Amino acid sequence: MIPQLYDIYAWTIPISIIVAIGLAYYLLKYIERQPSGTEKMIMIHQGIREGAKAYLMRQYKVVLAILGVLTVLIYIAVDHTIHGGVPYVSVSFMLGTISSLIAGYVSMEAATRSNVKVANAARESQAKPLKLAFYGGLVLGLMVVAMSLLGVAGLFYSYLFFVGDENLHHVPELIMGYGFGASLAALFAQLGGGIYTKAADVGADLVGKVEAGIPEDDPRNPAVIADNVGDNVGDCAGRGADLFESISAENIGSMIIGASIYLATNNVYFILFPLVARALGLLATIVGAFAVRPVEPPSRDQLINPLASLRNGLIVSTILIAILFYFVSVGMFGPAGIYVYFASLLGLAAALIIEVLTEYYTGDHKPVLSIAEASKTGPATNILMGISVGMESTALPVITVVVALIIAYVLGLDFAAAYGIGDTPYFTGTFLGGVYGTVAATIGMLSLTGIILAMDGYGPIADNAGGIIEMSGIEEEVGKTGEVLDAAGNTTKALAKGFGMGSATMAALLLFQAFLEVVAKVLKELEPYKNWAVAEFQEYLFKAFTLSDPAVLVGLLIGAMIPFLFSSMAIKAVGRAAGEIIEEVRRQFREIPGILEGKAKPDYAKCVDITTKAAQKEMIIPSLLVFLSPIIVGILLGFKAAGAFLLGVTASGIMVAFFMNNGGAAWDNAKKYIERMGLKGTDEHKAAVIGDTVGDPLKDTAGPSLHIVLKLVNNVAIVFGALFVLFVLFAL
Amino acid sequence: MIPQLYDIYAWTIPISIIVAIGLAYYLLKYIERQPSGTEKMIMIHQGIREGAKAYLMRQYKVVLAILGVLTVLIYIAVDHTIHGGVPYVSVSFMLGTISSLIAGYVSMEAATRSNVKVANAARESQAKPLKLAFYGGLVLGLMVVAMSLLGVAGLFYSYLFFVGDENLHHVPELIMGYGFGASLAALFAQLGGGIYTKAADVGADLVGKVEAGIPEDDPRNPAVIADNVGDNVGDCAGRGADLFESISAENIGSMIIGASIYLATNNVYFILFPLVARALGLLATIVGAFAVRPVEPPSRDQLINPLASLRNGLIVSTILIAILFYFVSVGMFGPAGIYVYFASLLGLAAALIIEVLTEYYTGDHKPVLSIAEASKTGPATNILMGISVGMESTALPVITVVVALIIAYVLGLDFAAAYGIGDTPYFTGTFLGGVYGTVAATIGMLSLTGIILAMDGYGPIADNAGGIIEMSGIEEEVGKTGEVLDAAGNTTKALAKGFGMGSATMAALLLFQAFLEVVAKVLKELEPYKNWAVAEFQEYLFKAFTLSDPAVLVGLLIGAMIPFLFSSMAIKAVGRAAGEIIEEVRRQFREIPGILEGKAKPDYAKCVDITTKAAQKEMIIPSLLVFLSPIIVGILLGFKAAGAFLLGVTASGIMVAFFMNNGGAAWDNAKKYIERMGLKGTDEHKAAVIGDTVGDPLKDTAGPSLHIVLKLVNNVAIVFGALFVLFVLFAL
Repeated sequence: MIPQLYDIYAWTIPISIIVAIGLAYYLLKYIERQPSGTEKMIMIHQGIREGAKAYLMRQYKVVLAILGVLTVLIYIAVDHTIHGGVPYVSVSFMLGTISSLIAGYVSMEAATRSNVKVANAARESQAKPLKLAFYGGLVLGLMVVAMSLLGVAGLFYSYLFFVGDENLHHVPELIMGYGFGASLAALFAQLGGGIYTKAADVGADLVGKVEAGIPEDDPRNPAVIADNVGDNVGDCAGRGADLFESISAENIGSMIIGASIYLATNNVYFILFPLVARALGLLATIVGAFAVRPVEPPSRDQLINPLASLRNGLIVSTILIAILFYFVSVGMFGPAGIYVYFASLLGLAAALIIEVLTEYYTGDHKPVLSIAEASKTGPATNILMGISVGMESTALPVITVVVALIIAYVLGLDFAAAYGIGDTPYFTGTFLGGVYGTVAATIGMLSLTGIILAMDGYGPIADNAGGIIEMSGIEEEVGKTGEVLDAAGNTTKALAKGFGMGSATMAALLLFQAFLEVVAKVLKELEPYKNWAVAEFQEYLFKAFTLSDPAVLVGLLIGAMIPFLFSSMAIKAVGRAAGEIIEEVRRQFREIPGILEGKAKPDYAKCVDITTKAAQKEMIIPSLLVFLSPIIVGILLGFKAAGAFLLGVTASGIMVAFFMNNGGAAWDNAKKYIERMGLKGTDEHKAAVIGDTVGDPLKDTAGPSLHIVLKLVNNVAIVFGALFVLFVLFAL
Repeated sequence: MIPQLYDIYAWTIPISIIVAIGLAYYLLKYIERQPSGTEKMIMIHQGIREGAKAYLMRQYKVVLAILGVLTVLIYIAVDHTIHGGVPYVSVSFMLGTISSLIAGYVSMEAATRSNVKVANAARESQAKPLKLAFYGGLVLGLMVVAMSLLGVAGLFYSYLFFVGDENLHHVPELIMGYGFGASLAALFAQLGGGIYTKAADVGADLVGKVEAGIPEDDPRNPAVIADNVGDNVGDCAGRGADLFESISAENIGSMIIGASIYLATNNVYFILFPLVARALGLLATIVGAFAVRPVEPPSRDQLINPLASLRNGLIVSTILIAILFYFVSVGMFGPAGIYVYFASLLGLAAALIIEVLTEYYTGDHKPVLSIAEASKTGPATNILMGISVGMESTALPVITVVVALIIAYVLGLDFAAAYGIGDTPYFTGTFLGGVYGTVAATIGMLSLTGIILAMDGYGPIADNAGGIIEMSGIEEEVGKTGEVLDAAGNTTKALAKGFGMGSATMAALLLFQAFLEVVAKVLKELEPYKNWAVAEFQEYLFKAFTLSDPAVLVGLLIGAMIPFLFSSMAIKAVGRAAGEIIEEVRRQFREIPGILEGKAKPDYAKCVDITTKAAQKEMIIPSLLVFLSPIIVGILLGFKAAGAFLLGVTASGIMVAFFMNNGGAAWDNAKKYIERMGLKGTDEHKAAVIGDTVGDPLKDTAGPSLHIVLKLVNNVAIVFGALFVLFVLFAL
């Protein structure tokens, strides 16, 4: 079946990559050609652009340094001991990080180029700036998916070329370092970016708005550029890296499982399906993007509805994916493929349901209105209601994921029977089929990544454009258009976070299965298990993770604790970093005469620099926690405890992340709702502002970073899984 | 070995019960004989007393009604189907609830009688009111432990009399309803009490302090009596019922496991050890109580240090327990008993370490000071720092529990080998030994219950006394004594909460083992497993709870979600109940002329009544969630998913509870710290007050209720475990 590697399905991969990267390049050029507006606008724009670049450069230096150290460690611990010194895992690890960084860089380029063009376009039109902001975001969506696919597929075919077709089934595990590398980049992008964006935001607000009494985005505030830079590094680069990690990890995890089934069926499509599905998702994103055609309202008094236009893109992409997946599933797996198809539809449906739930909990519905209502009795009741809303919002998304997984697993069992999947040396065909059902569901969910990211990337661009409009004094020309565009961005950001969370959950559970596969292969080589029958071996391995084993229970409890400790560290980091900025802004107000009268220019670059340094410094300890904790548990207590640890992190991490993301977004929107009611400046509004400030580091730093943590601990465990089997210091 | 039932060890049980109840009676009478002070003091005291009684009466009515319904259900579902219609489980269930209610009632009597005596004594002395408040609390400690022991031991011997000595090993499972009954009473006491106390507190503060600008505990505030009643129903009756449940469940769970080992060893002491240990703990509490001998400072200017005196009681009790347990362990189990002894010392040590950690996170140390510091930049940073402290505080206690459990398990394995525990039809002797090690650790930890509860009960009495001092206008006479006594009460309450949490964790994990035993017995009767060898059967049963089984994973995820959903409901319930009180207080201010000038008396009883009704109403939905969710998971997905569900609830519940309890207490003490710095009325203080208000429902309603939830879901699963084995609607 090897020839199928070069068949029609596989061709969708390079085609989609080329089209996507080409389109991204075209969009960048198109955006560049647009007029930039007044001199003041250009000046502000360049401040943001330089700040963002300065931040990225420093972050990249830190990441590359750590990458160097870790690559050596992985080479010694994994490639040297297991792969006979050939640097399969370490090279893929390096590439994973570098690809993520490139995708992030290009997306930031697009975002920081678009913002001023959007602001300028808003002076004359409503549809044009919307389109431009979406195009800027689209670059993010295209680059992230295309670079991930390029990396995974490129590594797969390259390694295949080295090891030869007869070792095809080993290739997916050789490239698993790519997911880990993506994790590294993502953790730093999301945690560092999250600390940066919120420290700058809180710092700018606390001294500017509260102490000096100047409005948000006022050019007299020295931290205002840092604040705008933050929107880009947090929402754009951060979320991009998050989903880059999700899709890379999902792809490789799926291929590892697919490789097992390939062993039993000799059908290489089991390995290729995840790649082809990703390619189709990318093509569907491009088609969907063309459906985003905002219509200019007849007059400036009628405001445009950006969400309606953006939603068209999502709808078209979804329908296209639902159609294309049918042909691929049935084409690749014959009539039995219908089960795979249904499972992937389940994932697609789960993604949309989670979007609806996120919108319910964070949009202008009962939960947000209840927080707004609670603001009437002051900040304490506002905070309590927000905590309550956040905690409640964990229930339905978790049930959605769980139900999707159960049904997908059952469909997978039917698939195994219908297709006739045989046993491998490690696992029974029935089990592999069940897992492949959940794989298909995860693939289905993640096929929406491109279009969701495009909508997400729209957010910080619109937000930045709003800032530029405010700072350059063109508000009167623009009217309410800037605000309307910005408000829609908040919704798309929240939706992307919901999607990020749902997909992180699915990806983490899928990675746990991949961890099982890796452990199985090592274990089966050891003397006691060598000659065991498949069913017996599988039974032994699976049942190792039983909760009645004290080591497993301990792993679970420690794992469940990690998201709490990590979040605590992340929140404190924001506080400390914000403290440094507050000091700096106060110093500038004190030492630069005429700054508050608008006569002297504040030293924006200094604030950007301080925030950048603080963010890099603050992310070290929490990063070490999540890198080292799975290794420590695995080496001390063995692979059983490590497996339970992973699920403990996943189970509690999902809840904490939903709590923080949704609670934070609900606080934010409750404040905006009160502002729209014309109550700005009232006690009610002050209470809501406090709630919003509390929610900020939860929803923009700790919560989204937990997405990465879920996947990262799994990736670490997959890469070091072999060691956990070999080293057990304290076996119970 | 049956004759040992009537031997010297067993005699400690009735002796300790009689001494404890006798002493409680004596203390009540002693307190009654003390003078009550001025007419105004007596009037206020009677208001609180009547309010507390009214609350209890209504709560008891609700509990008894639900008890009736549940008893019938349990009779049909369990006694009828499994015990051939003899109402073993349903009767023990009823007794469990009723015993808890009696213990709660007597303790409230003591608390509401002492408060005015303490206030009055404080006019002339510092040592006397401290002693009186401690004696009032001691009644709580003695009654809870004695009633639990009386119920468990009484049922054990009564049922033994019915079924005959040859069925001795079945008796512990027949009384398991007692723990479930205790859960029912505890959930309502803690959740209802928690809603009551915080709704009244928030309601009184928001309208009184914030809107009308009158101080706390001001008699012009119509909700002031309800607020004082709340201290009793929350901290006194609530925590009492919580620990009543913990020790009852621990006793019965330990006896169920002990009964298994009895089968293998014929040594009845395995069943009796938990009861005798409890009896010794009770005696040690009494001796420890005599060590609380506060010395009157030479002058009123030198303030007494209540914690130093109270701590003496804890130290003496601990040392005494550490000595007594040695003789019992070795006496009952011979030289091998030294392992059991060490395991119990581990539990004792873990309890003390958790106390130290709780003190670190909630006392005047770095975490609390960091919250106070963060208050300088406003309420938002105060809240964020509090969330961060609460989340961080999960780490070390969990690691403490985990390490204690691991070492205890290993000691238990050694014990099994040294003692020579044989196999039972269900489990191997080695495993049973390991589990008995963790049982001993849990017993060790819970042996401190009496003295900790006595210190806890001191808190609301001192708090109430402070209220009476304020309202009756005798502050000048009393000086700072009232405040000092009250402040110590906050520390002892926080310590008791830490202890409650640690012991709930240990008890929940022990109950999971008891759940395994129950499932094992039912399973072994079924045809396919009847003739399996012990090791094979144990292997099968244990490994059923493997995380690689989708049903188990789903159970885990749903379980991890429950504490979040429950907390959300509890917090909202407080908000709604507080809203009703706010309306009422506003109405009284509006409609009763002269109330704010102190010329007209507010209608206190009306506020008490409204709060009582609201608390009863609000606790229904969250209660249903925790009663029904284990049953639904168990019946739909079977006993495997139910087991994972229990551990999911436990793992995530521990974290959320520590987060809420410690975070809440830290906010509270940060505010108090700022007040002591003389900064009352500053912006810093206002920020800290907001943090304190946010923390209130977390630390006094949701957090402590989660202790109950952890144990309750396990108790439900134990009682309905047989059904889970028989009914599986959707097997995966």
